[in-house]
Amino acid sequence: MIGLMQDQPISLIDILKHAARWHGSQKIVSRRIEDGRITSQTYRRTLKRTAQLANALSKFGITIGDRIATMAWNTHRHVEVWYATAGTGTVCHTINPRLFPTQIEFIVNHAEDRILFIDADLIGVLTPLLPNLKSLEAVIIMTDSSHMPNAPSTEVKWLCYEDLLAGQAEDFDWKSLSNDSAASSLCYTSGTTGNPKGVLYSHRSTLWHALASVQKDAMNVGSEDSVLVVVPMFHASSWGLAFSLPMVGAKMILPGAKMEGASLHELLETERATVSAAVPTIWNMLLSYLSDSGSNLTFLKEVVIGGSAVPRSMIKAFKQQFGVHVVQAWGVTETSPMGTMNRPLSLRPAAETLEEEFDRDVAQGRPPFGVDIKIVDDEGAALRWDGDSIGKLMVRGPWTARAYFGGAQSVLIDGWFDTGDVATIDEYGFMTITDRSKDIIKSGGEWISSVAIENLAVSDPSVELAACLGIEDAKWGERPLLLVKLVKNAKFNESALRRRLSKDVADWQLPDKIAIVDEIPLTATGKIDKRALRSQLDDIRGD
Amino acid sequence: MIGLMQDQPISLIDILKHAARWHGSQKIVSRRIEDGRITSQTYRRTLKRTAQLANALSKFGITIGDRIATMAWNTHRHVEVWYATAGTGTVCHTINPRLFPTQIEFIVNHAEDRILFIDADLIGVLTPLLPNLKSLEAVIIMTDSSHMPNAPSTEVKWLCYEDLLAGQAEDFDWKSLSNDSAASSLCYTSGTTGNPKGVLYSHRSTLWHALASVQKDAMNVGSEDSVLVVVPMFHASSWGLAFSLPMVGAKMILPGAKMEGASLHELLETERATVSAAVPTIWNMLLSYLSDSGSNLTFLKEVVIGGSAVPRSMIKAFKQQFGVHVVQAWGVTETSPMGTMNRPLSLRPAAETLEEEFDRDVAQGRPPFGVDIKIVDDEGAALRWDGDSIGKLMVRGPWTARAYFGGAQSVLIDGWFDTGDVATIDEYGFMTITDRSKDIIKSGGEWISSVAIENLAVSDPSVELAACLGIEDAKWGERPLLLVKLVKNAKFNESALRRRLSKDVADWQLPDKIAIVDEIPLTATGKIDKRALRSQLDDIRGD
Repeated sequence: MIGLMQDQPISLIDILKHAARWHGSQKIVSRRIEDGRITSQTYRRTLKRTAQLANALSKFGITIGDRIATMAWNTHRHVEVWYATAGTGTVCHTINPRLFPTQIEFIVNHAEDRILFIDADLIGVLTPLLPNLKSLEAVIIMTDSSHMPNAPSTEVKWLCYEDLLAGQAEDFDWKSLSNDSAASSLCYTSGTTGNPKGVLYSHRSTLWHALASVQKDAMNVGSEDSVLVVVPMFHASSWGLAFSLPMVGAKMILPGAKMEGASLHELLETERATVSAAVPTIWNMLLSYLSDSGSNLTFLKEVVIGGSAVPRSMIKAFKQQFGVHVVQAWGVTETSPMGTMNRPLSLRPAAETLEEEFDRDVAQGRPPFGVDIKIVDDEGAALRWDGDSIGKLMVRGPWTARAYFGGAQSVLIDGWFDTGDVATIDEYGFMTITDRSKDIIKSGGEWISSVAIENLAVSDPSVELAACLGIEDAKWGERPLLLVKLVKNAKFNESALRRRLSKDVADWQLPDKIAIVDEIPLTATGKIDKRALRSQLDDIRGD
Repeated sequence: MIGLMQDQPISLIDILKHAARWHGSQKIVSRRIEDGRITSQTYRRTLKRTAQLANALSKFGITIGDRIATMAWNTHRHVEVWYATAGTGTVCHTINPRLFPTQIEFIVNHAEDRILFIDADLIGVLTPLLPNLKSLEAVIIMTDSSHMPNAPSTEVKWLCYEDLLAGQAEDFDWKSLSNDSAASSLCYTSGTTGNPKGVLYSHRSTLWHALASVQKDAMNVGSEDSVLVVVPMFHASSWGLAFSLPMVGAKMILPGAKMEGASLHELLETERATVSAAVPTIWNMLLSYLSDSGSNLTFLKEVVIGGSAVPRSMIKAFKQQFGVHVVQAWGVTETSPMGTMNRPLSLRPAAETLEEEFDRDVAQGRPPFGVDIKIVDDEGAALRWDGDSIGKLMVRGPWTARAYFGGAQSVLIDGWFDTGDVATIDEYGFMTITDRSKDIIKSGGEWISSVAIENLAVSDPSVELAACLGIEDAKWGERPLLLVKLVKNAKFNESALRRRLSKDVADWQLPDKIAIVDEIPLTATGKIDKRALRSQLDDIRGD
């Protein structure tokens, strides 16, 4: 028996329609790619421009399910493309411009993208690849005619975004979906091994994710919030914020291409941001800027941090120097990405000191309804929630992937997705990532967490970045090596760092060697690139 | 193209499974029907008992879609029945025991209920009807064997809840749904005209509703909250709280059959409730009790009030005497029921005084994503958001009904449901109910809001309840008559009341006559029963 409720499928375009109707004067603030100026437009205006874009897109003869790509920073135009694709039933494929050129070429061809929206400053990434992008019919530069770059020599149409919109009708007969589960967007994982793999999100999964994320115990955002969205729209969908913020009528602040400390600080202050979200690398830059310039944070209450584990020193600096609460979040591209968030739990006895609170804040947290997680051993048996047992982190739920684009087969194991992370879960259900499966160091049959050692190392004031790797060892299998990049002009005291590590790490887990390096390579998504590091080590050792 | 996410249908039982796994030690606190004692059990235990109940139910040969009824107060057992029906694919039909006996007979037969769960103190309502309830096979008394009432002379099975559970396995192979939109529960509107009409909710509509309600700008509840659920599970599904609280791991406090001031106050204090939800009648009782006993509210931060308009005097009393914030909510059975909630909006200039805040708090608020509303004139044309234009309130969205149980036809008008309320919407989107369509007073071609006059009247300290009715008038069509029930032993000053009304009501809208009455009849859901009042007036006038 089917219920008698209004059960027509809900599309992501309904979010923008709600924002335009109920929060019409609320603003999307964007830093322009063209000149770095801060501009703004209302949700009401955004819906009209999105309709203009949808009308323009329709003239390309697109049909439902066609892939339309973006290679762009966080701006109001990128938001418009997201909603115009949703409202025309096409699939928005967000491309990370920091991927290797060969990876970009692979994913555009694999997705069979017909149209590519691109920011003008990223043209240099695209043009060398153009001859190999077989499915591409048009490139639309997200700018106005006065800032249009010259067209390269190509057969592909080379169009100006604002020219395309000009004169189009400001309303559109938005496409109804045949099914809640209709595909809405596509994002490829950066793929440290093998080719990138595409996660094909649906309207249903994305709507559930957005709605779950605005709850009190997740992002906790409402119409009174002003949110600086640093996390890129091209990477894990800006953690859903380009959907969840219009859903509740919050102000959306988009940094464009400028993500260094001074620019972010300007946006945080002038737009009175109450909440922001980004990876630790970004916050390192901001904290350095604040310290160098003696600046303050007047309005910011919370920063949500994910992408990699947050060092305790960062949590402490935000709280003690600026009164800002750090909320850790964990997720992967395949989980849309919200997997867990670290929010208080009344069942756990209250923390007695601020230091104890910081100890708790380093965990990645608990899953909201809609996510289930477990940790398992190599045989797939569930491990205990004791805070010590380390296992492979598995996840399931309505916004978790079951297969990759173009792969007919489910990638699930008994309904669970293997995240590639290893973690512990404590008695209250708080999960802590201890490593990536492939990075954990296996020494004498025991596991050593490279992440734990790295986080302790960066709490040393002389250390800017740290990477811990397992090095082959005849006796133990692997032994840890710690590489550190120093803060400019800092004096390094190895024995002080070793004393620091000894406090929290068992003797047998301490790195055999600590080496200073000039650079630590990062991946396209700002994480330490251990694959590159390992091949450099091989080079150094002459393997 | 269908997305590649985990899109198997989600069942309401998944909420309790989540609570048992991630908030297993969190408690459902219940006041026992048997003796009024306060007891508690964890979510973990509740899932086990729910599995026992599901195993017991399976032995009745129930099949998917069968209706199973409850006539019960808010207790942990009622929660178990809700989830056991959800997890067996059956439909839980909640019956309001305060309906007229003929209405109860009608709806049990209309729903073809096979099994009825009932609290022992409500048996008296049921037994006279038993011979006429043709579909009923079993009555299950929600108590233990030592409190079992004697079976009446009936062919229907007469069973004890705890005996049924005893010895059953504590796990169950929960039924998967074939479709998100599978029916989950059924609730009949009290029907002031004609027979009651059944709203058939789905798993999809109920899950969306629960998830939307925990957001910051709606119920704003999380795992640290402790929530006294006074609003009955038999009426508009306890505003979804029996689903939304386990969803976030909040403590659920259930008052059983005792809803007078002293009992509620005891629960609020001993269980440290941070939030509560009920209709104004209940809060009137609590405020009287607090005033009479000189008691205080130590932990309560917010009360969500709906069901009928909240008088400004109540909002003021809660805030100024107890520091508790009143959040108004509006909805009807057909909207699951969350339609609007009154939360702040940063786009509106801040209130300058506390009095101005109270003025704002009397509105019923704005819709969250998932609800859209509009006001229309008699021809169906949308009216302006100017705070003055009064029109019929129409609603649509994924947790709004499209048809009634047993009625094949959609009841929608161009996709919108007519709520039977009339309202204004102001320039910021805040909706205020001015009346029920059938209660609005039409005088000289203009509309007079009976609700506005009633709310002003009860702000007079001598007035306990007030009802304003339109009386036929040869010249004007209708003219307002105000009936007041006085506070016990209070001295009534009509001219003081008239002066109070004159401040906020235009002269031509003032009641021609104010009459004191001994009683004002209430409906089964605690609202003023204007139909009964009108027939009493007819009797008095000898019509």
